[in-house]
Formats: sequence, structure tokens, C-alpha cells
Amino acid sequence: MVANKVKNSLKERVEKLKEAGVTPCLATILVGDDPSSATYVKMKGNACEKLGIVSKRIHLPATTTTEELLATITELNNDENVNGILLQHPVPEHVDERKAFDTISIEKDVDGVTSFGYGQTALGFGVFPSCTPAAILTIIKEYGIPVQGKHAVVVGRSPILGKPVSALLLNENATVTTCHSYTNNLPDIVKQADIVVAAVGKPNFIKGDWVKEGSVILDAGYNPGNIGDVEYDSCFEKASAITPVPGGVGPVTIAMLLKHTVDSAERTLQSKAENEVVQSN
Amino acid sequence: MVANKVKNSLKERVEKLKEAGVTPCLATILVGDDPSSATYVKMKGNACEKLGIVSKRIHLPATTTTEELLATITELNNDENVNGILLQHPVPEHVDERKAFDTISIEKDVDGVTSFGYGQTALGFGVFPSCTPAAILTIIKEYGIPVQGKHAVVVGRSPILGKPVSALLLNENATVTTCHSYTNNLPDIVKQADIVVAAVGKPNFIKGDWVKEGSVILDAGYNPGNIGDVEYDSCFEKASAITPVPGGVGPVTIAMLLKHTVDSAERTLQSKAENEVVQSN
Repeated sequence: MVANKVKNSLKERVEKLKEAGVTPCLATILVGDDPSSATYVKMKGNACEKLGIVSKRIHLPATTTTEELLATITELNNDENVNGILLQHPVPEHVDERKAFDTISIEKDVDGVTSFGYGQTALGFGVFPSCTPAAILTIIKEYGIPVQGKHAVVVGRSPILGKPVSALLLNENATVTTCHSYTNNLPDIVKQADIVVAAVGKPNFIKGDWVKEGSVILDAGYNPGNIGDVEYDSCFEKASAITPVPGGVGPVTIAMLLKHTVDSAERTLQSKAENEVVQSN
Repeated sequence: MVANKVKNSLKERVEKLKEAGVTPCLATILVGDDPSSATYVKMKGNACEKLGIVSKRIHLPATTTTEELLATITELNNDENVNGILLQHPVPEHVDERKAFDTISIEKDVDGVTSFGYGQTALGFGVFPSCTPAAILTIIKEYGIPVQGKHAVVVGRSPILGKPVSALLLNENATVTTCHSYTNNLPDIVKQADIVVAAVGKPNFIKGDWVKEGSVILDAGYNPGNIGDVEYDSCFEKASAITPVPGGVGPVTIAMLLKHTVDSAERTLQSKAENEVVQSN
């Protein structure tokens, strides 16, 4: 529902951009032949095209070196027809993924993977937060769930999920506890949460008897077999609101990627317009 | 004690750098005439000189514009004799402080104030974390205080203190709760902490009856009259370890700034040496 609402709101914006001579374009880079990665990239590309966003799909062989990948990214950074760049994670092990991510220019980092973008997001003025955290915050806002002063417990601390969602919730004035594999007494900590974010990558990990009556549970897990990180049935009994898997956070994540691409195209158009004003003065 | 140990370890490194023809240099920028800022900058400059680090002190008038400040920073970025740049906070209100911080090149951000550096630190591969958080982690390590699996509660969420110290503790495998002015039942949360970091800027704010018996308390507060954020006497009774104010975290913070400047000079020397090897091949 939230995903469709976001996508619908983008249609008109894409039309307006096209009228102004700009067709938003997302470049996706897939390195190697991992079948799930190929599926994800395809889904994202198709979602673009459905909205009238150009999907520029780059598929590099598994033997691609870090230098070759950086060269491809740099080319896309310099291509003024490209508004967003998505490098599908994971890349083959011999490639320096962090260096590749950090080569994406901040203006085109619509997937929110650069450390610069992460820093900006965490300090409160980021433009494109990582898409899954952005999706979680969008769901929370769309359902009018109060965050300020609430205790949010995030289980997981990955660079594109646990850490940035903790940062976003903190910036919304939640008290935030970030947990992970070294956390002691995890159930006791989760039990304190008004808002639980599961981002741990373990199927059915969060149990109903860990969560507080009336808590809000957001499941960002997506494990093989379409299984979330939350044991849905037992948690559903306790929660005042809960996202399912599949559905839930996943589709909104893709909608965020599309939204950021459109945002980026609009920003480009606006800065072009401002440059023209300066030149004509 | 920790501060002196760090400083002593730097003396030999500074000597070696000088023998190799590099004298480490920290540039400090003070904008305007705030007396405490002037005192802080002077203290830092004097600490440099005591160790044989060049202190390049730039004092700009309170009327300096953002553009003028950015130009000064860019000049220092390009000056190969400068290894670190410190912009004293706060700058006058009409100046865009965030833009100024983010103009400092990542290689010279020895005070750890850029959003890029923050992102790198939080994602686990930062070179120069913000100095007070770095000091807190150094104290913890010097005293052999276990962090992994411990519950750390950070009270405060400023960009150069609460947020980065939360990130550093998380990367050391603590479970981290970040609290702030909107936190409900703060004493109950602090009571769960094995490690308490006070970074809130309110004199004597954390009380003895808030803290758990045996907890470790790090007071990063520094309020007018040399008063910390922790009510020392009552917390001392409960804590297994506690830092005083004055003393404690403050002097180690300055030692971190010096260490980062020396680190930066060594990195410059090393990359010069590597370039020479490449050129001679």
C-alpha cells in the first residue's frame, strides 16, 4: 500500500521532468552471475521502466577488476544522462566493494551506499539515505506511528541497514539501542522496545515472547524462501503493528530507490536552471 | 596519565619525521573573538609546540564570510606543509559551519569533523575519528576495560561527541543505547549500563543513584567552572572506574589531536615515498 502510494506520487513528477526534457535514468551495475543478484537488479530495472524511468543496465563479468569497476562508475558519474547509480551488492570477493561504493558521486548515490552519504544522513542532513532504512521511516510516517521519545531497538548493524536505520530513528528523536551478535540478553533488550527493527538476516529470529505488548515491529529481513527475521505469527499476537515478509518493507525499499532517482533528476534540472539564470545575468 | 603516555609515544615519531625532512604541522583556524575559543585554540597550539609540532595559527575576524573561510581552508588543503586542519567550533552564526567543516580534506581532518570522516568512522574504517570519542576509546583500552558484549549508554548525540562515540563503541562490539533530551526514563536506561558516557553538556547531570554498581563512567562534559556532566562524588561510590573533570577525558582529547597530526604527517611521508618508487620504476 505504501509502496504503491509512493510510486503513484512519482508518476506525475516523471511526466513533468520529461516535459522539461529530462528523462530520469537509473544505472544499475551487476558484477558476475549470482542468480539472486541478477533477479534483484532485474526487478529494480523493471520497476524503473514501469514508471517511465530509463533503466541503464550494465552487466560486467565476474573477472572484472576493482580498477575496471571504478572506471565504469566514473564514466557513469560523468554521464549527465544518468541520475542515479546502483551497484548491486555483493560484488565478487576480489573486488574492493567499499572503494567501489565510495567512488559513486554523492549526487548520484540514490541507493545510499557511500560513506560520505552515510555520514551526512547520520549527522542529519543527508539527501539519499540507504533505501531500506528510508523505507522503514516512510512506513512509520505513513502509518502515523509516533517515534519521538520512544525506545527503538535495532537488531543488526550492517552499513546499509542496521547502522543507518539506527541513525535515522535517532534523528527522529527516538532513544535507540543497536544490538548484534555480541549482545547479551537480547530478548530482555528487545522487550523494552516500543519499536523493533529486525535487520539481522536470520529467519524467524525474533520471537513473540521477546516483544512487548503493543510494540511496532518492522521486519527488514529477507531470507531464502521469502522468510523474514521475525517469527510473524507469535509476534503478530503482541504487536500493535507489524510488517509481513514478503510484502512489507521490501516493496517500499524499491519505491525509495525510484523516488531517490526522481529526486536526483529534479535536483539536476533545478541546478541547470539556476546555472542558466547565473549565466544570463 | 594516559595523555602523557600518548604524548611521550609521539616524541620519537616527531623526531623521526624531522630526520626525514618533515616537520608535522597543525593549522588552527579561529574565527572571531570568543574568549573560550581563543583559549582552547591557544592550548592546542601550545601543546603542539611542546612536542615539536609546528602550530600555524590563523585568526580571522568575526566578519569573515563563509566564502572567505572556505577559501582559507582550501588554501590549507593545498599547502603540503600542513598535515592537519582544525577549525575551532563554534564559528560566528552567519557562517555555514557544516559547509566549512566538510571543506576540510579528509587527509587533513585530524579533528574528525567532516561528514565523510564520520561516515568512514561509523562504518568501521575511519582514519581520524573525532578527538573526544577517540580519547574515550583510548582511555578504555589503556585501562583494559572490556567492551565487547557490554551495554554502553551514551547520553548525548552531538556530531562530534555523542554520535561518533556511539559508533566507535558499537564497532568495538558493545550494545549501544544513545540517549538525549527526548529520552524517557533516562535514569532507568543509564542504570542498565556497564559503560556510561556522559556527553550532554549539563553540569552534574548524571547522578549516583542512576548508575549501576560496578559500572565504568566516562565524563566528556566540560561545563563552565570546570564542571563535568557527572555528579562525581555520588557516582564515584558506585563506579568501578570513573574519569574526573578537570583531567580525565579532556587532556587525552588534546593528545589525540596531536597523535592524529603526527599520523597524518607519517602518511604523507609514506605516500611520497611510494610515489618516488613508482616514478623510479
